[in-house]
Amino acid sequence: MKTVGYAAHNSDAEMVPYHFERRALRANDVAIEILFSGICHSDLHTVNGDWGPQPYPLVPGHEIVGRVIEVGSDVKNYKVGDNVGVGCMVDSCQECDQCHSHEEQYCRVGMTPTYGAPDRIDGTITQGGYSKHIVVREEFVLSIPDTLDMSKAAPILCAGITTFSPLRTWGVKEGSRVGVIGLGGLGHMAVKLAVAMGAEVTVLSRSNKKEADAKELGATGILASTDKDAMKKATASFDLIIDTVPVKHDVTVYAPLLDIDGTLVIVGQVGPMDEFMSVPMIMGRRRVAGSLIGGIKETQEVLDFCGQHNIHPECKIIRPDEVNDAFDVMAKGDISHRYVMDMSSLAVEG
Amino acid sequence: MKTVGYAAHNSDAEMVPYHFERRALRANDVAIEILFSGICHSDLHTVNGDWGPQPYPLVPGHEIVGRVIEVGSDVKNYKVGDNVGVGCMVDSCQECDQCHSHEEQYCRVGMTPTYGAPDRIDGTITQGGYSKHIVVREEFVLSIPDTLDMSKAAPILCAGITTFSPLRTWGVKEGSRVGVIGLGGLGHMAVKLAVAMGAEVTVLSRSNKKEADAKELGATGILASTDKDAMKKATASFDLIIDTVPVKHDVTVYAPLLDIDGTLVIVGQVGPMDEFMSVPMIMGRRRVAGSLIGGIKETQEVLDFCGQHNIHPECKIIRPDEVNDAFDVMAKGDISHRYVMDMSSLAVEG
Repeated sequence: MKTVGYAAHNSDAEMVPYHFERRALRANDVAIEILFSGICHSDLHTVNGDWGPQPYPLVPGHEIVGRVIEVGSDVKNYKVGDNVGVGCMVDSCQECDQCHSHEEQYCRVGMTPTYGAPDRIDGTITQGGYSKHIVVREEFVLSIPDTLDMSKAAPILCAGITTFSPLRTWGVKEGSRVGVIGLGGLGHMAVKLAVAMGAEVTVLSRSNKKEADAKELGATGILASTDKDAMKKATASFDLIIDTVPVKHDVTVYAPLLDIDGTLVIVGQVGPMDEFMSVPMIMGRRRVAGSLIGGIKETQEVLDFCGQHNIHPECKIIRPDEVNDAFDVMAKGDISHRYVMDMSSLAVEG
Repeated sequence: MKTVGYAAHNSDAEMVPYHFERRALRANDVAIEILFSGICHSDLHTVNGDWGPQPYPLVPGHEIVGRVIEVGSDVKNYKVGDNVGVGCMVDSCQECDQCHSHEEQYCRVGMTPTYGAPDRIDGTITQGGYSKHIVVREEFVLSIPDTLDMSKAAPILCAGITTFSPLRTWGVKEGSRVGVIGLGGLGHMAVKLAVAMGAEVTVLSRSNKKEADAKELGATGILASTDKDAMKKATASFDLIIDTVPVKHDVTVYAPLLDIDGTLVIVGQVGPMDEFMSVPMIMGRRRVAGSLIGGIKETQEVLDFCGQHNIHPECKIIRPDEVNDAFDVMAKGDISHRYVMDMSSLAVEG
């Protein structure tokens, strides 16, 4: 199938229109016309080669929503016309303990990322959602509930599941005390989701500047890490902290805020973290953990949860030809919404 | 009550004999003649002022076993002649959620350490086990099972409970895969306890030098952190790692050895830790935690457990007047036994 997308041709270049082929449908494949494609901060890192060399040309994008346009002969759960999504993975071994327990993101053999990795069957490099079409095996296609606004659903496939999964893993429920560090793409979703689970949510930020934003999302307020008195008063007051800060930082500032047996989960920074003090961890049996997106079953759960609770990411809709400008803004940091491309203006050449 | 001990008079001085008073018994107090007193690496740090200024003269020691010589009028569980122990705490508020759930080490008000802290009632500074007698409220006195050798039981009160508690907290059982980093006072007890719980235990060390020691303790062998091939092969092969390294170090070396959802528990280094990479934590939802000794109930459990399983720390018995030499050896590091003082040569002056 002919399609078109925006591809980076090397780590320094801007993304430009790129015409390429999607594979012919296998029996268990679903072909999707992409309607909206979210722009994730990790796309920027990957394209820039920050996380290692990439197989250029590379079409990024792993927050994908669209409509089914064709299905393979064995496909059971989707039909032409269905509203569907694709997230950060398009395949995994389906045979290991992790795959069997719906944790494909931790597949023992390694899951196949939506872009930049060899397909398990033919070895071609996967290409992502900054494109008009995608072909994905049924097991990695998600259903978008009718109650979700398609134009705003895409970021749930990454920012949503990345924060939903640790909230579930660490048992957040009615009355849980949750802190969220940072209020960007991940952070604002963490707040909305935790609030909908009944948690008492506080945003942790350098200053009180975003207090109004935090409250609008449902948080009780902001705890400013620069306010020493407030930080001291907040000692041992959180069951769980979701740390979405996407740069190297020190968890020691936040660890004392955790109650006994509390956990701080790193979901933002993928790389080096600062030196830390073991003392607050030892003195309260506190934990620092990491968490990677979530499994396919859990991704469907977060979509359904958002549908039930009318949760939509804060999205700014742009055209695909604005993608490089969006990257520039994101590189400068600190945006509290998600860019989502409306793919309708992108056309496959005759 | 008149008694004698070995006290440091400042952070640079050697410990010297020191005659002082133990308080008159309160209604819930137990007076103990100390028979054996373990020497913990943390005594060295505390006396040297590494963890902050101390109220000298200071009698260290929190691995104490002895015999009851007198009891207060309200004491119910101990009588003269009983073999008893005292560990790292001698009091706590007894009213908070942590005290109520037998986690006095995490008392909200703060537990009272066995030495160097103000007594909650009269404000006098607590003095530890490097002495002939101690007076402790009943709730913080442990019973030493008959099956334990009194001369070797003392280190269970700190090294034992410090490793037993995380083994229990993280659910180690038959077949659990446990790694123990370091084979000193804490490490060798971690191995013995985990083996007795039915775990498959591997010692992690810089080299294979201590392989025979590790196997003698019941471990299956040593994994040398300098052996890159062996380390790679051991990826995701541990459910729990007990990290007893008492100096600043990098947990990134060990994190990939944890299986999905596995935890590395820091019990050795109380202070700064190196920079670390979040990647292995994120990619396997792995956790780094701390853990502080254990509660009184759990301390009784580890004593009983050691009694049932005939577990004794590796002890080297010395006289109290050899304590400074023992500190010198410990300061140079890397001993795989515990020094225990036989207090029988210590006499209170007429």
